[in-house]
Amino acid sequence: MRSTPGSPAAGCHQPVLAVDIGGTKTTAAVVVDRDGTPVPAVRRTAPTPAADGGAAVLASALGLALACAEEGRAVLGTAAVAVGFGTAGVVDRLGRSVVAATSALPGWAGTELASAAERELGMPATVMNDVQAFLAGECAAGAARHCDVAVAVMAGTGIGGAVAVGGRLVRGAHGAAGHLGHLPVPGAESLLCPCGATGHVEARAAGPAMTDEARRRLPDRHLPDLRAVAALAEAGDSVARSVLESGGHALGTALAGVVAALDPDVVVLGGGAAASGPWFEAGLRAALASHTLPLLAGVRLTRSALDADAVLIGAATEARRLPADASSESTGTL
Amino acid sequence: MRSTPGSPAAGCHQPVLAVDIGGTKTTAAVVVDRDGTPVPAVRRTAPTPAADGGAAVLASALGLALACAEEGRAVLGTAAVAVGFGTAGVVDRLGRSVVAATSALPGWAGTELASAAERELGMPATVMNDVQAFLAGECAAGAARHCDVAVAVMAGTGIGGAVAVGGRLVRGAHGAAGHLGHLPVPGAESLLCPCGATGHVEARAAGPAMTDEARRRLPDRHLPDLRAVAALAEAGDSVARSVLESGGHALGTALAGVVAALDPDVVVLGGGAAASGPWFEAGLRAALASHTLPLLAGVRLTRSALDADAVLIGAATEARRLPADASSESTGTL
Repeated sequence: MRSTPGSPAAGCHQPVLAVDIGGTKTTAAVVVDRDGTPVPAVRRTAPTPAADGGAAVLASALGLALACAEEGRAVLGTAAVAVGFGTAGVVDRLGRSVVAATSALPGWAGTELASAAERELGMPATVMNDVQAFLAGECAAGAARHCDVAVAVMAGTGIGGAVAVGGRLVRGAHGAAGHLGHLPVPGAESLLCPCGATGHVEARAAGPAMTDEARRRLPDRHLPDLRAVAALAEAGDSVARSVLESGGHALGTALAGVVAALDPDVVVLGGGAAASGPWFEAGLRAALASHTLPLLAGVRLTRSALDADAVLIGAATEARRLPADASSESTGTL
Repeated sequence: MRSTPGSPAAGCHQPVLAVDIGGTKTTAAVVVDRDGTPVPAVRRTAPTPAADGGAAVLASALGLALACAEEGRAVLGTAAVAVGFGTAGVVDRLGRSVVAATSALPGWAGTELASAAERELGMPATVMNDVQAFLAGECAAGAARHCDVAVAVMAGTGIGGAVAVGGRLVRGAHGAAGHLGHLPVPGAESLLCPCGATGHVEARAAGPAMTDEARRRLPDRHLPDLRAVAALAEAGDSVARSVLESGGHALGTALAGVVAALDPDVVVLGGGAAASGPWFEAGLRAALASHTLPLLAGVRLTRSALDADAVLIGAATEARRLPADASSESTGTL
């Protein structure tokens, strides 16, 4: 177990702001430390104005953060000293700006989120990808607490992930560490991945990929989305069950590679596909078991302990690690 | 870039011992710091008595280390203050004992190497797997210097690897991080891996796997080992070239997954297969390029900068990080 490098921003007990920017909603919270555990004390949520472009998303998130900070100061009697963001998309390795965004947030790429937040909120800011923030939260207070090496995998509309070592997120050279959807797996060779390549696990195990596969194999059924496939499986349809199990098997095969590379203490599983019933996870576990070295066969695979709060707690934890002088632009306090 | 946790054992400038225990030879060195770079100053090499079992290997390594330490003290006028070992096999996560060994070192598994060294040499000791030590060396003074995330892959008789984050090796929950030979890849589904599973990259890209494949495709040729295949490729044989390229392609496909998961600053490539001529590396690079996300396509793939010294320097670097009180058994000094 490693010690955590760096000293906290401003003492362990001062509140920090955390903001979770998703494709449909944005949540801001003031996070306080209760007996060593970060806990969201005050929170505000609003729809993300994704269709209005990056500037609107930014203005909305900062407005929400400001209102939440003011409410937090009134309730707690202390102002937040730093702010952390978790956002969809790829964030640069220094945690300052959004490098690439998903189609759920058009115009979001290129946003200088940390600088804007420091200017508008008057406190040091840091930004992470939301899956990285999810795992940072699980490391700080959830399923990956006290783990030296932790992996998160989110299987939903896409497949994302994150890796943490020594309690800190691995951001990677381009801030893109954790792109577990783009691991090549057997059986996907002819399938196009949303990234443009062929053969990646996302082309077999993401929700839309499994839904497409179910439509191919069950042409007479109306299957608008993965929930419909899951409902069919739940009702006893063996083809729907096989599609989910096969998708899980593909993801388990990819995860076996990650387990061989990192020998993690824990793999935290989340996302809609993972929650689609027992068949996806059964396939995943079977593939993991068949591909994993005997020494690593006991790897712990678990669900999120914090659910929707994980991103907020992870963003808050990263904000708490900001040195007090992180921002040259931070001159005021709320 | 992260700071390095922990303070060095006993100042940056005191010499440390390093021992590289391989299947055929063992090398000990006294490593000194020259202008911030670790350099082996005195070294001794002897054959590893592998056939005589684990106790013989241990006695030989400790004897060599002791002789080297004494010579170093005479030459340098200062005694080494700690010792680091790099050894074939899996080492427990605390860096104390050998958990599993390859067939090259029968009876080596179970050896309490650090405790024995502390008792016999009278200084704190730490142990790493040799590929992990190789990458630790490249991080300290070679191709991965100043890198936040680094990956090593050694393609030879087997395929091994290592991962470093923030300048420190990732050991993993069981000390087994970096087992890159056991990543599932397309095209290996029917091939048995030495670990007992099927479908792993080692079953396609390791030297024996490629030699077997060449024998199948060239039944009239005498091909005792990979060197013979490489010589045939060098002489212009298109089948031999295709076998090497295809092996490299399998490894590049597996590496693309590692790159997606970790977004490394550098991948350091080593081992006999990698040195078998241009075809293996060409296949590897082609697969990496076709599978890697556009954002990560520029990942730096390079050769070792330290070659045979990498393991010694890595073991020395890890020894230098031992706290001075690491060993309760360490009561004397040489």
